[in-house]
Amino acid sequence: MTSQNAGKNRNIDLGPGKEFDLVRALLTEWGKSAQRIGDDAAIITVPEGEKLVVTTDTSVEGVHFLHEWLNHFEIGYRATAAALSDLAAMAARPLGIVIALTLPEADRVEARALAVGIGEGASAVLCPIVGGDLSAGKTLSLTITALGAVAKPLSRAGAKPGQRVYVTGHLGGPAAAVRAWRAGREPSSDHRARFANPIPRIEPAIGLARRGASSAIDISDGLVSDLAHVAAASKVRIEIDLDRIPLVEGVAPLQAANSGEEYEIVVTAPAIDTEEFRAEFGLALTEIGRVVAGPVGVELREQGRKVNPPPGFDHFRNK
Amino acid sequence: MTSQNAGKNRNIDLGPGKEFDLVRALLTEWGKSAQRIGDDAAIITVPEGEKLVVTTDTSVEGVHFLHEWLNHFEIGYRATAAALSDLAAMAARPLGIVIALTLPEADRVEARALAVGIGEGASAVLCPIVGGDLSAGKTLSLTITALGAVAKPLSRAGAKPGQRVYVTGHLGGPAAAVRAWRAGREPSSDHRARFANPIPRIEPAIGLARRGASSAIDISDGLVSDLAHVAAASKVRIEIDLDRIPLVEGVAPLQAANSGEEYEIVVTAPAIDTEEFRAEFGLALTEIGRVVAGPVGVELREQGRKVNPPPGFDHFRNK
Repeated sequence: MTSQNAGKNRNIDLGPGKEFDLVRALLTEWGKSAQRIGDDAAIITVPEGEKLVVTTDTSVEGVHFLHEWLNHFEIGYRATAAALSDLAAMAARPLGIVIALTLPEADRVEARALAVGIGEGASAVLCPIVGGDLSAGKTLSLTITALGAVAKPLSRAGAKPGQRVYVTGHLGGPAAAVRAWRAGREPSSDHRARFANPIPRIEPAIGLARRGASSAIDISDGLVSDLAHVAAASKVRIEIDLDRIPLVEGVAPLQAANSGEEYEIVVTAPAIDTEEFRAEFGLALTEIGRVVAGPVGVELREQGRKVNPPPGFDHFRNK
Repeated sequence: MTSQNAGKNRNIDLGPGKEFDLVRALLTEWGKSAQRIGDDAAIITVPEGEKLVVTTDTSVEGVHFLHEWLNHFEIGYRATAAALSDLAAMAARPLGIVIALTLPEADRVEARALAVGIGEGASAVLCPIVGGDLSAGKTLSLTITALGAVAKPLSRAGAKPGQRVYVTGHLGGPAAAVRAWRAGREPSSDHRARFANPIPRIEPAIGLARRGASSAIDISDGLVSDLAHVAAASKVRIEIDLDRIPLVEGVAPLQAANSGEEYEIVVTAPAIDTEEFRAEFGLALTEIGRVVAGPVGVELREQGRKVNPPPGFDHFRNK
């Protein structure tokens, strides 16, 4: 960083007060990741010829995670990754995040760990932290708003009959981790990591757009539920071959099809060389189905036969 | 709206599910205010030659408001106005808001009233609603992220010795309303309205920038606390004449100086014709002090004598 940039990106001095002392402590943890924080609003320059994309995502204790499951570093990291994952679904590159943090008294002692987790989640995809808001409250809650830029955004509405369906990574880990916790067991370290440390697929998603993908969504509610949004938005039918879904160890296909908070990317595209993709991004890409004309919706198939889709993950139903 | 625009701004169809039924109900309430909602992220075009400004603001039940004080329409309206007020502080024009709503079961029956309030808050300053996120949770909470554009943003860091300090409107209403509620009384309708229905001063703030204002902040924590941020950011001393602070009826100057959540704008600027300003915007503008060189901070003065500043409003201290 040149001294000119250092000056330009310096945070603005805040006035006195206990709330602002805490903000100052968080800024210290973020170091150079925090840029020009302290004004009423952050200023962002969108690269010429690109559009701004913006998405907001909330993680609430008791709904999206439990304190018994995750430490504060992981809570911060995961909330940030979840928000940035929506930029990946648009094939956008991050420009910055703003963080609205509701911090109960009991969590204040862990505020620095939370900040370090947020900082890691952002810097993992080279995203600066440009602003925030800090509130008291009874429930720990993080709302991360992510801003990105892209010349030609992917959309849920771009699926076309004749295209194939591809998904990144391996599915089922987060649901398996939650099942284990709910049964009073500790999940396998692999399943736990898939829940606690998702990786926003920014570069792979941009790579998929470059390979002709015309629709995308990130898996937050579950493969089937999320593809139902793509089908509805694109007014197409999507057939998924259950036996082709890439699985983490110890998970059945229907469980993987219904596992939420994966933050893998599913796209519809013409034929893609999956081996070449894996070589470029070090990430599995698997063809799992196809887009067809026909009644709008998602159809699960096993050995050529239709099977009933499992119910999607729905916070309002499951709680 | 042309049919072409109607198509362009149409919301994207969502898949099935109880959560999405609720989102559909909210979209119905917002009507044409809701634009292109339903993808992973909203797409916004920033006007050429302008910068994007972004700000996020949380309103939590039990911290920023109580159900006994406000109905759900007012809760939605007020949270939206509070977020948009930060755009006014940058002299920016709104491009859109995204809404992260944490909705407890008990508040679901009032979700439409909440949505109508949010919609009113946005459309009052011609701002579209471009996206959101809906969560379950134990505490009603709204995080509104507001996006705006401006060629030359105002900053907290732009105050210069020799400038004068101006504030819009009349201060003290919100604190008086909260005092009444806390004492078990119903506030006067005037004080209550100042708390429940603040108006983001977008056009007046742009008018102040046009008149040479070089620093601005919106009053969210209290005139003195907020000016302390301007003083710290600008490395100047700000003197405020207590007896010149414009008051709502029934409020003393020190109370007004400490009243938060006003969402009036305070600027530093060269001499401004306040009568001409009032004629253009139908809004009072009052000169209340000056920027001087000297130790960084805010000094309150009464009849030429220094008085001790009251403590600022601080959520973490007051709760």
